[in-house]
Amino acid sequence: MSETRVLVLDADPPPVLDRLAGRARVLHCDEASLAARLPEADVLLVWDFLSDAVRDAWPGPGPRPGWVHTASAGVDRLLFPELLASDTVVTNARGVFDRPIAEYVAGLVLAMAKDFHRSWELQRERRWLHRETAKVYGSRAVVVGSGPIGRRIGTTLAALGVEIALVGRRAREDDAEFGRVHASEALPGLLPEADWVVCAAPLTPTTAGMFDAAAFALMKPGARFINVGRGGHVVEEDLAAALRAGRPGGAALDVFAAEPLPAASPLWDLPGLVVSPHMSGDTFGWRDDLSEQFLDNFDRWQAGRPLANVVDKRLGYVPAEG
Amino acid sequence: MSETRVLVLDADPPPVLDRLAGRARVLHCDEASLAARLPEADVLLVWDFLSDAVRDAWPGPGPRPGWVHTASAGVDRLLFPELLASDTVVTNARGVFDRPIAEYVAGLVLAMAKDFHRSWELQRERRWLHRETAKVYGSRAVVVGSGPIGRRIGTTLAALGVEIALVGRRAREDDAEFGRVHASEALPGLLPEADWVVCAAPLTPTTAGMFDAAAFALMKPGARFINVGRGGHVVEEDLAAALRAGRPGGAALDVFAAEPLPAASPLWDLPGLVVSPHMSGDTFGWRDDLSEQFLDNFDRWQAGRPLANVVDKRLGYVPAEG
Repeated sequence: MSETRVLVLDADPPPVLDRLAGRARVLHCDEASLAARLPEADVLLVWDFLSDAVRDAWPGPGPRPGWVHTASAGVDRLLFPELLASDTVVTNARGVFDRPIAEYVAGLVLAMAKDFHRSWELQRERRWLHRETAKVYGSRAVVVGSGPIGRRIGTTLAALGVEIALVGRRAREDDAEFGRVHASEALPGLLPEADWVVCAAPLTPTTAGMFDAAAFALMKPGARFINVGRGGHVVEEDLAAALRAGRPGGAALDVFAAEPLPAASPLWDLPGLVVSPHMSGDTFGWRDDLSEQFLDNFDRWQAGRPLANVVDKRLGYVPAEG
Repeated sequence: MSETRVLVLDADPPPVLDRLAGRARVLHCDEASLAARLPEADVLLVWDFLSDAVRDAWPGPGPRPGWVHTASAGVDRLLFPELLASDTVVTNARGVFDRPIAEYVAGLVLAMAKDFHRSWELQRERRWLHRETAKVYGSRAVVVGSGPIGRRIGTTLAALGVEIALVGRRAREDDAEFGRVHASEALPGLLPEADWVVCAAPLTPTTAGMFDAAAFALMKPGARFINVGRGGHVVEEDLAAALRAGRPGGAALDVFAAEPLPAASPLWDLPGLVVSPHMSGDTFGWRDDLSEQFLDNFDRWQAGRPLANVVDKRLGYVPAEG
């Protein structure tokens, strides 16, 4: 049996991957050398999930790997026509980011409810200014995205007493965790009631740009919008105009159309907007967790067993079991 | 039957109290006029719970009210010798602040774990700087205070997957909510294991100054200390020295020895210290909630029924039922 060749697209792969030694031939490449090395690879492990390098290199000459794994939950950069049409299996990091992102979103909800940002501005000015703040208990959230990340956000906020409306691709009345899941078509009817609107959806042609002027106009003036999905879910100029008009009353973006967010972007100092650098899921040890997850799947690959977390390339995410 | 005279110590009482009209004669006073009006009052309603006016006025001539209600959970300013020795019943606002304060503490825990403060500093500088942050799930908290506020903090953090050690006056192995409650004497053994140390205790001679250099020295370098009790629980100079030495790694104070915190205080810009102006429990409508709670108790008083939330003046708080 010839040795499996694993090509790793990453300048600085985590040491945990050294455990492939003796079991596979590990090749490394960066964006520039990817095209040249791709024909040698049985397996491609993509660390830089925001890169378009795979899309650019894929159509070249020679064979292509039968399995591509991305160390991310979102697979949007891999859903280009040539990969879609191929037999190559795509897997993702489903599961690793659920709880970290849910904690991050709960933190943003509480920080916005309790006006922490303003408190810290006042602290810088050494000003003692008592204010009243919002209760989170009894408030309402719409969570867009019924995959594991959206679900964990929903259960985490529910544990704080927030009423959750979970939105997925299709409506369901028999969901084991939430009872009802709303279809995306129902979103316009849900937005006017929400105190919190959280986007944790996969980026697909259906969900791209779904948060636009029309969506923001349906939100309450006091509502807050949080995006931990992908920058492409939001029409950023529409959000900027909406925040300037005071509807919604605030927002937090961890993801952007262009990352890193350029220093000249008007988003940095938009009133009521909290900017963070695509880090909501990245807790200490995350790269080790992602490596372990790949190694588990590599065991399956070598044993000829079905891979875990296989993306439905047409849907753009890993469908739920059952 | 002569009309009950309710004296309200507050410059600006909430309109909800107008519902006393026809049922009581409502008298208003401020700190300066309290001493003169005290002999007329059957009931004293204290809004400014940080004031020493009651302590100063109480020893004067004439009769004293049979019931003093304070619109706060803490009764520390009322536990002076003359009131302790009197037959006057003291009641407090037990219950109103539990959930708001627990949400506030959960928000601080998440904000500190996720490094929000630093993200907001970087946002001001328009700098995109990805960092890894801590998981809250699986971390450990010591919550000092086994009254309703400490308990709600404990259950709220537990819902986020935090392991809780609840500390009260006396050890118990049969607590309905937490199983074990640790005695305050056990605190030194608990502090070295804690990622989060939260003070939500009543301020009594036993708890005053309990967070001093010795306590901070027992905390982990990465631990964070949060005080939503009273400023008197903390030896502020010791905390300042401890933070400068990096143990604990951070702190958040909502309460201070002197409030408002003077603009010249070194606490405003101590590294790793988050300052907020004694507002953790004060959600929109809190003064109405407090007024409703007083009105309920006033019904009991007029009907000759036992009052709710009667403080054990010797202990310094309302003991748990049963």
